[in-house]
Amino acid sequence: VDEDPGLAMTRILDPADVAARFRDEIRLQVEAADAPLRLVGVLAGDHGPSRTYASYAERACADLGVAFELRHVERLLAEHAIREANADPDVHGIIVYYPVFGSGHDVYLRELVDPAKDVEGMHSTWARALYENRRFIDAAGTRKAILPCTPLAVLKLVEAAGSFRPSGPPLAGRTVTLFKRSEVVGRPLASMMANDGAHVYSFDVDGPMLFDPPAESDAAHGVRETAVTRAQALAESDIVVTGVPSRQFPLVHGAELRPGALCINFSTFRNFADDIDGTAACFIPRVGPMTVLMVVRNALRLRQNAR
Amino acid sequence: VDEDPGLAMTRILDPADVAARFRDEIRLQVEAADAPLRLVGVLAGDHGPSRTYASYAERACADLGVAFELRHVERLLAEHAIREANADPDVHGIIVYYPVFGSGHDVYLRELVDPAKDVEGMHSTWARALYENRRFIDAAGTRKAILPCTPLAVLKLVEAAGSFRPSGPPLAGRTVTLFKRSEVVGRPLASMMANDGAHVYSFDVDGPMLFDPPAESDAAHGVRETAVTRAQALAESDIVVTGVPSRQFPLVHGAELRPGALCINFSTFRNFADDIDGTAACFIPRVGPMTVLMVVRNALRLRQNAR
Repeated sequence: VDEDPGLAMTRILDPADVAARFRDEIRLQVEAADAPLRLVGVLAGDHGPSRTYASYAERACADLGVAFELRHVERLLAEHAIREANADPDVHGIIVYYPVFGSGHDVYLRELVDPAKDVEGMHSTWARALYENRRFIDAAGTRKAILPCTPLAVLKLVEAAGSFRPSGPPLAGRTVTLFKRSEVVGRPLASMMANDGAHVYSFDVDGPMLFDPPAESDAAHGVRETAVTRAQALAESDIVVTGVPSRQFPLVHGAELRPGALCINFSTFRNFADDIDGTAACFIPRVGPMTVLMVVRNALRLRQNAR
Repeated sequence: VDEDPGLAMTRILDPADVAARFRDEIRLQVEAADAPLRLVGVLAGDHGPSRTYASYAERACADLGVAFELRHVERLLAEHAIREANADPDVHGIIVYYPVFGSGHDVYLRELVDPAKDVEGMHSTWARALYENRRFIDAAGTRKAILPCTPLAVLKLVEAAGSFRPSGPPLAGRTVTLFKRSEVVGRPLASMMANDGAHVYSFDVDGPMLFDPPAESDAAHGVRETAVTRAQALAESDIVVTGVPSRQFPLVHGAELRPGALCINFSTFRNFADDIDGTAACFIPRVGPMTVLMVVRNALRLRQNAR
C-alpha cells in the first residue's frame, strides 16, 4: 500500500531553538544595564526535580550574563532566606523551588516573596493583575505587570509556531483545549489566551470551564461552566495544551485532534500519543528552555519598574 | 473490686458555656457602636458542612445584634461576590466558606479578601503579622493585628479551662502537643502558643516540629525540626490539641497522656479515645461555638482599626 501523499509529517518544534532566538535579545538588554542583574534561588530540602530546575537556571543565567546565586537551606530556613533576599537591594529577583514543605505552608512562602522581586510572577498581586487584565500597575501606564513565567513561555512558543494573528488580538477566533487547571500554569494560561482573543476549554478533575475573550477591548475575559466533552473540545481546537503530571491521564490521540492542530505539552509526563504525528501540524514536547528566559525577562522588567 | 478513689472524673468543658460568657461582653460592644456591624458570608456550591457553618454564624450574629447576610452564589461568581463586599463601605467583615473550588483557586480567593475585612484572619497579611509576632499593624501601636479565629478560639478555651498563668507569658513553662499542622489552624496555633510562652510539639505527616518561646520578649518564637516521638511528646504535655480530619488517625488514649492534661479536639472527627476519662483533667470536645464569637470580635477590631 502506498502512503497517503496528503499525510504530512508533524513538525517538532524544539523550545531550545526558539529560546536561542530570544537569548540574544535578552543578553543585549542584560549587557546594556549599568549594573549586573542578580537573581537568588532558594532551594530547600532534597527534592530531585528542584535541583535539576535550579541547575538549568544556573546554566541559563551564566549564558546570559546574569548573576545567579543558589542558596541551599533547610526547609525551616527558607523563610529567612526569602526575607533576606527581599531586604537586599542588590538582589533583583527571587526564585523559590517548590515544594519546600509540600503543604499550604508553601503558599505562605510564595506570598512572602516581595512582588517586586517575584520573577516567576506567582504572587497573588500578579495573579490579580492578570485576572483583571491590568497590563500596568500604575495609573500612568509606565510600569508593566509581571506575567507568570511558564504560561508566558507557552504563549511565546505558540507565537513561534506561527499561530498568532498578524494584527488585532493575537489569538482572535482560535479555539484552545487546555488539560490541567493549576494556579501555577493552567488557570493563568487559560486567562492569558482568552485575554488574547481565544476561546479556551479548560479541563480538570472538578469539571470543564470555558474562558471567553473580553466582551470589550478593555475588559477582562469571561469564564463559565460548560458541558463540553473532551471529544467535542479537541475536535474544535486549533491549539491543545497539556500539563497533566500523571500516568493515569488518557493520552491525547491523533484521531481526537482537529487536523493541523498545534500541540504543546508542558508536563514532565507524556500527555500525547505518538499517533498525533501526521494529524497535528506541530508538536512542542516541552517548555522548560523558554521558561528560564521568561524569568530573566521578568527580572529585567521588575528592575525597570523599580526605577 | 473497688474503684480507685484517687481517679477523679475528667471535667468536660462545653465551649457553648464559655461562649455564653463572652457573648454578653461582645454584645455590649456591638450595641455601643453608632452603626450596626455588618458581615457578609459568601457561600458557593453545595458543600454540606459549609451550609451548616453558615447557619451557625447566622444564628450567632442574630443573637449578638450583628447583621449577617449570606450570599449564596455559583462558584465562578464567588470572586465577584468578594470584590463587591470589598468595595462596599457598609460591609465590615467577609466570611468565605471553603471549599469553593477545593483547589489552589481557593487560595486566590482567600488573598482577594481585603485584609481590612478579613474577620477570619486568614489573609497572608495577618499570617505574616502572627509569625513575626507583631501585635500591631502601625508604628504608633494603635491598630491591633487580627488573629485567625479558630486558633484564637482554642486559646480562649485554654484560658477558660484555667491553664493560663496569672502573670507573665500565659503559657510560660507549659508543654503542648498539637496534631495537624494546617495553615488554617495548626501552624498558627502552634505559633500563638509558643509566642505565649509554651513549648509546642507539632505533628503532621511531614514530620514533627518544635515551636519554642521567643528568646527575647520582643522577638518571635523559634521553630526547629525535632526527633521527638508521639509517646514522648504526649507524656510531657500539659495540653494536647487535636485537629485531624480523618478516621485513620490513631486515637489519643488515656495511657499516653500526662495525668492532669487538658485535651482539646477542634476536628469534626473523634481524635481522643473515651479512656482519657480519669487521666485528663479536662476535655473540650469541640471549639465551634467560640470560633463564631472570635469572628465578631475580629470584626469589631477591624472596624476600630479603620477609624
